[in-house]
Amino acid sequence: MSLYQQQEIKLYNTLTRQKEVFRPLVAGKVGMYVCGPTVYQNVHLGNCRTFISFDVMYRYLKHLGYQVRYVRNITDAGHMVGDGDEGEDKVAKQARLEQVEPMEIVQQYTVGFHHVMEQFNALPPSIEPTATGHIVEQIDMTQQIVENGYGYEIDGTIYCDVNRLNELYPYGQLSGRKLEDLYSNTRELDGQDQKRNPLDFALWKKAKPEHIQKWNSPWGTGFPGWHLECSAMSQKYLGEQFDIHGGGLDLAPTHHTNEIAQSMACCGKQPAQYWLHTNMLTVNGTKMSKSLGNSFLPHELFAGSHPLLEQPYSPMTVRFFFLQAHYRSTVDFSNEALQAAEKGYRRLMAAFQLLPKLSPANSFATSSTAEDVALNALLDECYACMNDDFNTPQTIAVLFGIAAKINAYHHQQAPLGDLQSATFERLKMVFSSMIIDVLGLLDETNAADSGVTDGLMSLILEIRANARANKDWTTSDIIRNQLTALGISVKDGKEGTTWNLG
Amino acid sequence: MSLYQQQEIKLYNTLTRQKEVFRPLVAGKVGMYVCGPTVYQNVHLGNCRTFISFDVMYRYLKHLGYQVRYVRNITDAGHMVGDGDEGEDKVAKQARLEQVEPMEIVQQYTVGFHHVMEQFNALPPSIEPTATGHIVEQIDMTQQIVENGYGYEIDGTIYCDVNRLNELYPYGQLSGRKLEDLYSNTRELDGQDQKRNPLDFALWKKAKPEHIQKWNSPWGTGFPGWHLECSAMSQKYLGEQFDIHGGGLDLAPTHHTNEIAQSMACCGKQPAQYWLHTNMLTVNGTKMSKSLGNSFLPHELFAGSHPLLEQPYSPMTVRFFFLQAHYRSTVDFSNEALQAAEKGYRRLMAAFQLLPKLSPANSFATSSTAEDVALNALLDECYACMNDDFNTPQTIAVLFGIAAKINAYHHQQAPLGDLQSATFERLKMVFSSMIIDVLGLLDETNAADSGVTDGLMSLILEIRANARANKDWTTSDIIRNQLTALGISVKDGKEGTTWNLG
Repeated sequence: MSLYQQQEIKLYNTLTRQKEVFRPLVAGKVGMYVCGPTVYQNVHLGNCRTFISFDVMYRYLKHLGYQVRYVRNITDAGHMVGDGDEGEDKVAKQARLEQVEPMEIVQQYTVGFHHVMEQFNALPPSIEPTATGHIVEQIDMTQQIVENGYGYEIDGTIYCDVNRLNELYPYGQLSGRKLEDLYSNTRELDGQDQKRNPLDFALWKKAKPEHIQKWNSPWGTGFPGWHLECSAMSQKYLGEQFDIHGGGLDLAPTHHTNEIAQSMACCGKQPAQYWLHTNMLTVNGTKMSKSLGNSFLPHELFAGSHPLLEQPYSPMTVRFFFLQAHYRSTVDFSNEALQAAEKGYRRLMAAFQLLPKLSPANSFATSSTAEDVALNALLDECYACMNDDFNTPQTIAVLFGIAAKINAYHHQQAPLGDLQSATFERLKMVFSSMIIDVLGLLDETNAADSGVTDGLMSLILEIRANARANKDWTTSDIIRNQLTALGISVKDGKEGTTWNLG
Repeated sequence: MSLYQQQEIKLYNTLTRQKEVFRPLVAGKVGMYVCGPTVYQNVHLGNCRTFISFDVMYRYLKHLGYQVRYVRNITDAGHMVGDGDEGEDKVAKQARLEQVEPMEIVQQYTVGFHHVMEQFNALPPSIEPTATGHIVEQIDMTQQIVENGYGYEIDGTIYCDVNRLNELYPYGQLSGRKLEDLYSNTRELDGQDQKRNPLDFALWKKAKPEHIQKWNSPWGTGFPGWHLECSAMSQKYLGEQFDIHGGGLDLAPTHHTNEIAQSMACCGKQPAQYWLHTNMLTVNGTKMSKSLGNSFLPHELFAGSHPLLEQPYSPMTVRFFFLQAHYRSTVDFSNEALQAAEKGYRRLMAAFQLLPKLSPANSFATSSTAEDVALNALLDECYACMNDDFNTPQTIAVLFGIAAKINAYHHQQAPLGDLQSATFERLKMVFSSMIIDVLGLLDETNAADSGVTDGLMSLILEIRANARANKDWTTSDIIRNQLTALGISVKDGKEGTTWNLG
């Protein structure tokens, strides 16, 4: 019997605004789609938090024995600045600024994104499809929607007809709003707008002559609307209906609402059974934003190279910090909180390292004891917490309780011999599975003291900055070559210099 | 003046069967296309050798100051078992065997491929396009070829008409064969074949009902022929004509020949000016093949886990081993050769590590000396070798000559003071650029974490020595204070400077 047959997961469904028992469409199999990054800049920490949250869900479902197909896309075209129908494509704009081809931007930031995900020990998804890789599928879906009477063409652009769709199902269901309320929050159409109603959105857009990423279609040269790719790709790889659709909470009101609209318009089906959303990040209680100067990137966090950061925080510290909040709660970055997470992470790992060293003074108990019952209850509790809408902070709290037991056994404050042999085996299995397989934490504490490396690097970067200021190219060349030889890459950015090892 | 304006590269062009002076179409810019892997299995070492060879060319061109757009594709559909028009798609077959979706196969082996390339320290290309990501472009190109009269449809499949094309240009030019000779080596069409002539090949194929990776097209549901993707993608990202097209030698007779055919048929132009091909691998003098049991994978080589391997060979040892042969020569794997490469790589790196420690007993020469002239000649020779069709084995031989000089200076068998100061600076610059930037070797001998500390400390002590020599007390004070803060003590003695942590 698989573990998943013994565990009942409940998860909070944004669509119904309640916790529901998770029942996959096909027993033993899970299809999960998560909206991935738009690759026109370095991935920001809010995105990282989302992907780490879904990484833990993916890991837990796999741990339970489900066969999971996890699809997370890469948006490489069609996503406009401002997230609407008008304006410039984000990738194309960055390409213009960096004076390269849009696909060079895509490559650069996709490689960077993968690197950061690897640093955070997030597993690659099963399939990682791209918007430009599914133009034919998006054209096909648009045609089907037009054929079904839910799409209309105006001058080479195809819009989705929200009013007509709302006759079929409540369009505002995911955002919990009625159509009238949505309209009252929408600006009136001005003369510039071609579409019939303000909530209608583009499925396919006619390309202006200066637009670079464009393709031939039955309606002339154009490109897909941002929302369409996720509907086309989730349908292609997971079917018209699948189990879980996830993403950041900011995507629910428009992007995910329109994904549902597209699937309803195309095949009359709600695409996903469960809609899961991760909450936002704040910094010292304030929204993270470039204009406020409180926005730092993953590599700045790892290097401690942003003015707001008192020290570097390792990838596992940050991952642990994220998981200490529930994915539906906001997370607030502060040095205090990160330092506490660093301590907590190390405390957990110290217990993990003790585990293989434990052995009973004499022998194990041969029948149940109070200690045996208590420990088994804690081990059950790990699963109960994860089953409760993937409640990682509670899981971690229970793991701390187990760590305290491990320490007590180690210091012989509690006799390990009070456990039955099978319970001891279960302790080892569950504790390490939860930490390594499910929470996805690596044992960074085994690496040599990185404090020295950090200190030496900050010295070298200071000398380098001085050498450059003094036009002492010999010194700056010596530094560059030696660092390269050591596999250390240095990057100069607007907000200072950062480095990465290996 | 950029370095490339001082260096004249000659490269062997398969198309003309001679070495030609490299003159890019646009001064200072290079467009390079290399055929990447079909991602249906672990990347094999022959492919790795090809990509490492082109990585060195990419690095050298960038080192010379060229702005290089390097496109290397991922084949994720349309490549049939047996490389022909008929049979099963390689990716689809593997998906059937592993009981997953074709795009799960693609994801799994793309992630694995990127991982191996990173181990080999090969830079990511500027753009990494996929076949499935360019279906519209391939349909467009097929339509253009049909419109130009060089393609014909039979039952939903479009073939390229080789006989008609051969009236336009010599179809067999790349393989150095006449059309009659090519025909004499081709089997007769049997009743099963739809195409008019045996050399005709599919641009677009009608999909059988069981075929999974298929798309709507003007000719019904189908998929692109294997050769088409490279023509469509190179044209999209590098233009109708670009500078360098590369790949394994096995691709020249059919795949590359048909790429030229497609570009000629579509726009009447030879796509690439220079066609470069890497040669094959053998193992103990025999062709590497699964059926002979002498085929090992990169990770087996790194782990030493194949019966034919006496020990593990590190990624840098293997990279160095590849580069000790010219890319147009075959390379033969044997334990003896790999062990010799390991020694050679370490010898080179030992000299590289000595470089920052060198300083003259008294002072540098103020005018030219025989030693100065000899060393400058060696440094020039590095470039001359690389300019000669990227002759890495000769470059490495010269680097060994320079390493011997470095050793002699270090052991004071030859006085470093016979060099002029500028020559010493040039030595450091060229030697490290060639090893690190151009050959792309990492200093693995420092790989352990303590190695990083050692490496950083040796850099800092070098800077400290220079600062003291230049009476730059600010820098030497910064260094002293920061090292004290880190608990590192430094001791200057007769035999050099030593340091201690904590």
